[in-house]
Amino acid sequence: MTWDDKFSLDAGSINASEIRELLKILADPAILSFAGGIPDPALFPMDKVRQFRERMVDHPNLDRQLMQYSQTEGYEPLRNWVATKTSCKNTTLTKENILITNGAQQSLSLIASALIDAGTPIALADPTYLGALQVFGCRRPKYLTIETDNDGLIIDSVEEAFKQKPKFLYTIPDFQNPGGMTISLERRQKIIELAHQYDVIVLEDTAYRALYYDNAPPASLLEIEGDFLGKEQWDQRGLVVQLGTASKTLMPALRVGWSIAPRALINKLILLKQACDLHTSTVNQILAFELANEILESHIEKLRDVYGERCKAMIDSLTRYLPNTVNFTPVKGGMFVWLNLPQGMDARKLLEKSLAEEKIAFVPGAAFHANGGGENTLRLSFSTCAPEVIDDGMKRLAGLIRREQ
Amino acid sequence: MTWDDKFSLDAGSINASEIRELLKILADPAILSFAGGIPDPALFPMDKVRQFRERMVDHPNLDRQLMQYSQTEGYEPLRNWVATKTSCKNTTLTKENILITNGAQQSLSLIASALIDAGTPIALADPTYLGALQVFGCRRPKYLTIETDNDGLIIDSVEEAFKQKPKFLYTIPDFQNPGGMTISLERRQKIIELAHQYDVIVLEDTAYRALYYDNAPPASLLEIEGDFLGKEQWDQRGLVVQLGTASKTLMPALRVGWSIAPRALINKLILLKQACDLHTSTVNQILAFELANEILESHIEKLRDVYGERCKAMIDSLTRYLPNTVNFTPVKGGMFVWLNLPQGMDARKLLEKSLAEEKIAFVPGAAFHANGGGENTLRLSFSTCAPEVIDDGMKRLAGLIRREQ
Repeated sequence: MTWDDKFSLDAGSINASEIRELLKILADPAILSFAGGIPDPALFPMDKVRQFRERMVDHPNLDRQLMQYSQTEGYEPLRNWVATKTSCKNTTLTKENILITNGAQQSLSLIASALIDAGTPIALADPTYLGALQVFGCRRPKYLTIETDNDGLIIDSVEEAFKQKPKFLYTIPDFQNPGGMTISLERRQKIIELAHQYDVIVLEDTAYRALYYDNAPPASLLEIEGDFLGKEQWDQRGLVVQLGTASKTLMPALRVGWSIAPRALINKLILLKQACDLHTSTVNQILAFELANEILESHIEKLRDVYGERCKAMIDSLTRYLPNTVNFTPVKGGMFVWLNLPQGMDARKLLEKSLAEEKIAFVPGAAFHANGGGENTLRLSFSTCAPEVIDDGMKRLAGLIRREQ
Repeated sequence: MTWDDKFSLDAGSINASEIRELLKILADPAILSFAGGIPDPALFPMDKVRQFRERMVDHPNLDRQLMQYSQTEGYEPLRNWVATKTSCKNTTLTKENILITNGAQQSLSLIASALIDAGTPIALADPTYLGALQVFGCRRPKYLTIETDNDGLIIDSVEEAFKQKPKFLYTIPDFQNPGGMTISLERRQKIIELAHQYDVIVLEDTAYRALYYDNAPPASLLEIEGDFLGKEQWDQRGLVVQLGTASKTLMPALRVGWSIAPRALINKLILLKQACDLHTSTVNQILAFELANEILESHIEKLRDVYGERCKAMIDSLTRYLPNTVNFTPVKGGMFVWLNLPQGMDARKLLEKSLAEEKIAFVPGAAFHANGGGENTLRLSFSTCAPEVIDDGMKRLAGLIRREQ
């Protein structure tokens, strides 16, 4: 027997992620990596984690109850916190609009189950988050790719895609992974108009929204839709579903994220999550809530300082060293800078040479393209390296690109 | 717009669980509940949990690393522990055969994604675990139900189902939820033979296997298949996939379980889990490993003593009080006793009266039947009540049944 003959059509269609395989190489400490899209663990608020654990020791009965099965929807104070934090001028959220998930990745997974049949058209940016392609790919949709520039999704391309009746648009409007671009306010407003004109759900992934190092990004699509629809219309007529996470601002291994959606969708997502894994770790949810409640704002200020320096270092170094045949997104937020190499230069081959000759890693951009292309693109992350290391790395990478072109 | 028009075919087919709705009523402390299939939190090993947390405080650098993204497969020492514990005479497992999941429920979810297309026939006991019906139902299989008696699956009925070429058989061979029955050794051997004759995968759910209060259950299907196939043949030719969990022997809110499968399937499940939620909470995995490693055997002895007394109390009381028109499984393990009421008596209506007149809760059995039926059946759990409370409850329940018949 062979297992390949036994897999479902959905499972048969998925394969190992190139980046995942790449990240295994990076366990080699001699490699200087700009590949991973991960927060710097040196910045995790461990003092607060330890205080939380000590408090738990003082409440043995509470602690015991927390180890029992719990409700699928999530820890109520955390749901209320998300609802309060995300409510905006015309849209008041309640806990009934919030489902806690194992990171935003599980939100994507549940929403994919809720909305995608095999062949369902869905629209997303070119390039887009690889983890979204992986999870959507498990249900075999038809991808409609939307062109982007430094202001994010290009509106003509959005409308072109919407004419093909996608079930939803998936977008990371702020400091996108992998492209770094932020959608302008004007374009956001236009996207909401088009979504309602063509009846397209909009999944707004806010993973990097708080990580701005200059000005805050424009209003969220959720907020803009509230203004578009009018006072308290969103729960009945809203098309924007917003995803959030504690992974980038607090710590990934909490595995705590959330979906914000009209109740009709949240109720379906709760049923799907119940079937998937009953509920998210309660202690992790409480820890996330207490950290969010007590230190999140001040902690994010610290992250902005540190990541902001690293971001500036990367942009400055790339500006200084890269040949003018290479373009990159002038980002001021998030974790990523996206490079367009000269046409014909293959980023995969460049990576092989870069690892061999310079011991520098990045992620070739092709994998971020749902329907192929992007062989001459690559993603750099600045989140885990000090400015001087970034400067050294960019100088050497730029030197390699000069030699190759 | 209405969200109902937007849901996928899979999501459109799922509805709220009757039991879940029921459990909300049970928040009323005046109700004496034999409904929930949950461990008694008074038995959770909280001292060890606190010791673990204190040890973590002493290792701040380790602790910090644990909050970073981690590998999808799971915490390596835990995978090794499962492999060693589950290896048997002819089948040596390695960590490559183990995937850590968010409880066994997520194992079911990933396996369902890996193996079920819409309309795929799958075989399962009548009655069977409701959570399995929920998660399989999310992919719209065709259910082939297998008749059961006190020795578990009836072999003629298994073969009848296998002739219809199911992709897999899902079974809980030991102290089944909800029926309480344990499959005899002879039937287990026959099931393995039939699985290979008809090329049917066997999902063996071992959630209650360690909770025996008299003799240990017969050899697992995994072990029996090893003997059937011969020395170290399972990884290449095995059809048995075993699911395990820390929820029933340690604590549910750890959300730690595992799949044990030939590598070809594990590799696919890893890809699916990566897409679903990247990885399971690392701290919870380490806590589960340390508890498993340090105290599991002695802790299970304690659970056997306490649950064993409660089990005996329920069986004795039912024997004493029930009219002889009612049959029940004479269980000596797990958490459940299954009642067959007189034909024509509706367990849902009985529950309404029971809640109103006796303030006693149980679960009507119809929901555990994949293709309908079982209206005159119900499930009782003895896991959370003291023997004298059980005796009082069973006396009152039996009185109600006598009045109703």
